[in-house]
Amino acid sequence: MKNINVALLGFGTVGSGVAEAIRKNSRIMEDSIGCHFTISHVLVRHPEKYRDMDLLQGIHLTSSFDDIIADSSIDIIIEVMGGIHPAKEYIFEALNHHINVVSANKDLVALFGPEIMHTAMENHVNFSCEASVGGGIPILRPLHDSLAANEIESIVGIVNGTTNFILSNMDDSGVSYGDALRVAQKKGYAEADPTNDVAGYDAARKLAILASIGFHANVTFDDVLVEGIEKISQNDVQYASEMGYTIKLLAVAIRQENGIALNVYPAFVPRSHPLASVKGSYNAIYVTGNIVDDVMFYGKGAGSLPTASAVMGDVISTAKHILNHSTGTGMMLTETKRIPFYSSLKLENSYYFRLIVDDVTGVLSQIASAYADNDISIKEVVQKSRIEDAAELMIITEKTPRENIIHVEKALQVLPCMRQVANVVRVMEDDRK
Amino acid sequence: MKNINVALLGFGTVGSGVAEAIRKNSRIMEDSIGCHFTISHVLVRHPEKYRDMDLLQGIHLTSSFDDIIADSSIDIIIEVMGGIHPAKEYIFEALNHHINVVSANKDLVALFGPEIMHTAMENHVNFSCEASVGGGIPILRPLHDSLAANEIESIVGIVNGTTNFILSNMDDSGVSYGDALRVAQKKGYAEADPTNDVAGYDAARKLAILASIGFHANVTFDDVLVEGIEKISQNDVQYASEMGYTIKLLAVAIRQENGIALNVYPAFVPRSHPLASVKGSYNAIYVTGNIVDDVMFYGKGAGSLPTASAVMGDVISTAKHILNHSTGTGMMLTETKRIPFYSSLKLENSYYFRLIVDDVTGVLSQIASAYADNDISIKEVVQKSRIEDAAELMIITEKTPRENIIHVEKALQVLPCMRQVANVVRVMEDDRK
Repeated sequence: MKNINVALLGFGTVGSGVAEAIRKNSRIMEDSIGCHFTISHVLVRHPEKYRDMDLLQGIHLTSSFDDIIADSSIDIIIEVMGGIHPAKEYIFEALNHHINVVSANKDLVALFGPEIMHTAMENHVNFSCEASVGGGIPILRPLHDSLAANEIESIVGIVNGTTNFILSNMDDSGVSYGDALRVAQKKGYAEADPTNDVAGYDAARKLAILASIGFHANVTFDDVLVEGIEKISQNDVQYASEMGYTIKLLAVAIRQENGIALNVYPAFVPRSHPLASVKGSYNAIYVTGNIVDDVMFYGKGAGSLPTASAVMGDVISTAKHILNHSTGTGMMLTETKRIPFYSSLKLENSYYFRLIVDDVTGVLSQIASAYADNDISIKEVVQKSRIEDAAELMIITEKTPRENIIHVEKALQVLPCMRQVANVVRVMEDDRK
Repeated sequence: MKNINVALLGFGTVGSGVAEAIRKNSRIMEDSIGCHFTISHVLVRHPEKYRDMDLLQGIHLTSSFDDIIADSSIDIIIEVMGGIHPAKEYIFEALNHHINVVSANKDLVALFGPEIMHTAMENHVNFSCEASVGGGIPILRPLHDSLAANEIESIVGIVNGTTNFILSNMDDSGVSYGDALRVAQKKGYAEADPTNDVAGYDAARKLAILASIGFHANVTFDDVLVEGIEKISQNDVQYASEMGYTIKLLAVAIRQENGIALNVYPAFVPRSHPLASVKGSYNAIYVTGNIVDDVMFYGKGAGSLPTASAVMGDVISTAKHILNHSTGTGMMLTETKRIPFYSSLKLENSYYFRLIVDDVTGVLSQIASAYADNDISIKEVVQKSRIEDAAELMIITEKTPRENIIHVEKALQVLPCMRQVANVVRVMEDDRK
């Protein structure tokens, strides 16, 4: 039986998952594709720390990438170290040495995807990165291949586990944003500085990768407008729930007639919608195409073994290409062309407002005028609570362009009765047919 | 630009969808894979009926398969006629003439999948059939390729549109089974004789295909135990709803230590579970692997364009193989080995019973004894209604092997107080971690 030698760059959460997956399922992979996988090298900063690990017996541990690149028996390098440097340099060097690469590195792929792909193609080797979006969920390859006959109209993803854990916890247990964040940090789901996740940057990177593939264009992180979940309060979560919604951080790419719009924002999702059942550590990507209508891909968005499943899917696919002598073909993220952007200011949504106002007569007429002046129809107004001389109002609008919402927010802020525009959140519709 | 000639066998719902998809998105496909698709022939029984159709201008309409097989310019034959004969003969003839085949034919693939695949491989051409399960949903290729590193533990599918439409309608509108079936027939979702769908046979065929791929074995329709939805009443749907469940027809393949068990049955699905949001014409397949944990694939399970999306995904993939000179590789459903079966009698589930009994004292103790005698723990007993001198009881059991349930059903039927064991339905748990 043919043997495929792989080298692991990094041995953290995903790297150890890959080693565990190979040990656990080697017989299944042999049966399935007729070759055996051997981990020949693992690159770690301090090899001595890993020597006694059961999983790594018989494997060459090294802190030198040169050791790996010099070994001509290596068929596939698996980059699971994360970050930009030195992962980027290692990947380019591997490709230029005609070694296939599988990577789980979203930061790198979101910034340099097309450049890496072209280097791989020039060298007739594969570069694949299924694990960079949605953990174990098969999404990049199905989006690129299975849906290839479609013009993709929109991609809506729940692709950040940290924010989904926080929001699910706020919804299920009634805790505050701050408490939910602290629980996430304690469990290791959120970092000490949680900005990258809670401000939506991580989701924006994944959206850039999804949009590049779905729209056959070169989309980067900088093209995505980002709003985070920091302002979502327990009141917002509770009012959403009372109306039959749950709040999720969505990464949304929409094709309009004159370009595409890319946004990350929290939104009310109707409980009847499949995205509403995506809780805790799960991710999902909801794709609409002009032929297929809508499809959703759902699963564990992170974690050692689920992410290793996606990495090994790529490794097995690469092994098949090696066996068929067809490496360097059928790759994704090869487009370098840019695509026009549609102004997100023109995108229409229904919106939820939570306002803290003076509890005096005539307040509602002031507020209603502000909405009317900005051409916004109000669908519902409810007074939710009253504390001393202040009242909390919830307002739901009809579908309105983003720019009118920004204008009314400013107008509301300067009303004499207004104490605080506490939150403004988009409301998603369930428009499944 | 390279041209790929395709011939369509059949021009019904799916065939016209394929023609429409090619017309609508030819530019997108050209951009994406760098080749142009031309429909050169369409095989129909009465060509004269189609001559004026806008979609078919410039295409050779024929009622003779020999016309098609004789044309050496055809690269791919798309079989969308359905049924076993003459589709089977045409497909084998095409493959033996070294022509690639894409098929949407679940009946054929469920019976002859491995035989067809081996004929394709011997002739170094592709056979693919993504559209045979789940309409437009990318499932067979992702299950085979993206999840290749996993030992698949279970596959739970909502894969029959007719029954899902009927059950969703009963749940949403409170109509009876009979009325929901008549609506489905009026809308064209159910046939005049609905047995194939409502008795679960269609779902069983799709389960056989899914299990063959997921478990790397040759599983056929005959291996699946089938229960239909004919006995589901509005009362059952309503009681399920009151407890936070919705009833779905599930196709379930489970790996146990000593083999696999394959069943189609209606079940209570918790509303919190992603499968519960799969309504009407949607399908979903929920897959658990020992590495990836659980993933779900969701989308339109039928319909002209959604199914055409899956067909064209296969056509595009085959075109890439043609361009790379790698047809005949990487195919699914190639296993001919059989796999041991685990007795479905031993599978454990929680169960719902609806019983119509005499409304007299002492009834509950008779019934409780019957359950106790069969080692079944009762979780909940509720008297739901009382009509004249009869009472309707709902009983939910703890997890119990199927064989004990069959025994208690017989014991209940002969109790003096028992008027009718109105229904017995499995209750699914939401065991997501």
